Amino acid sequence: MNLSKNKDTASEVKIGSGRKRRLLHTESLMMVVIDFEDGPAAKPDAQHVHPHEQVTCVAEGEVLFFIGKESRRLSAGDMVAVPPDQPHGIQLMTPRVRLIDTFTPLRQDLL
Amino acid sequence: MNLSKNKDTASEVKIGSGRKRRLLHTESLMMVVIDFEDGPAAKPDAQHVHPHEQVTCVAEGEVLFFIGKESRRLSAGDMVAVPPDQPHGIQLMTPRVRLIDTFTPLRQDLL
Repeated sequence: MNLSKNKDTASEVKIGSGRKRRLLHTESLMMVVIDFEDGPAAKPDAQHVHPHEQVTCVAEGEVLFFIGKESRRLSAGDMVAVPPDQPHGIQLMTPRVRLIDTFTPLRQDLL
Repeated sequence: MNLSKNKDTASEVKIGSGRKRRLLHTESLMMVVIDFEDGPAAKPDAQHVHPHEQVTCVAEGEVLFFIGKESRRLSAGDMVAVPPDQPHGIQLMTPRVRLIDTFTPLRQDLL
């Protein structure tokens, strides 16, 4: 079986300066671990939108999580749900942040 | 909106001595943060099985993660996927462990 993704062996995708992601999925459930080392940020990242359901957990560090114009500060262990088609984004509040993003259905744009 | 679950305000469910969980879900995606403070364990927990797709990430600590007779040691940032109807379980390897379990469809037994 090849069902686990060890952080030391999984293929990482660099998604920007100081940012990388690893992902694992089943047929209709996708998990993406994103490590940020470029915080804190002076302003929010650009928001984005997708039709997938999303639930995110902060594993390490702190972010401001925006859904539209609303924001809430999240730290390790906090979760947030993003309904389909809702613009959302983050602002890094600590030097290092690890987010666990999960989606259904699969985000084909990340595969 | 009430889309986020702050760990300080979300209702925790005690699921055993030194174990508690918090959950958040959308229509078909469920995330469960489980905090264990009863490790390390001398032997594995009993395995369980369900028809839902599952992907799990270790946020803190280390576990042995069993799928049937196979096991792999996972630490913070590692992920594992559990196909539907596969018996699986964990053994805590550190005093404290935080797991992020995600499921689709929703596990009605947890609601």
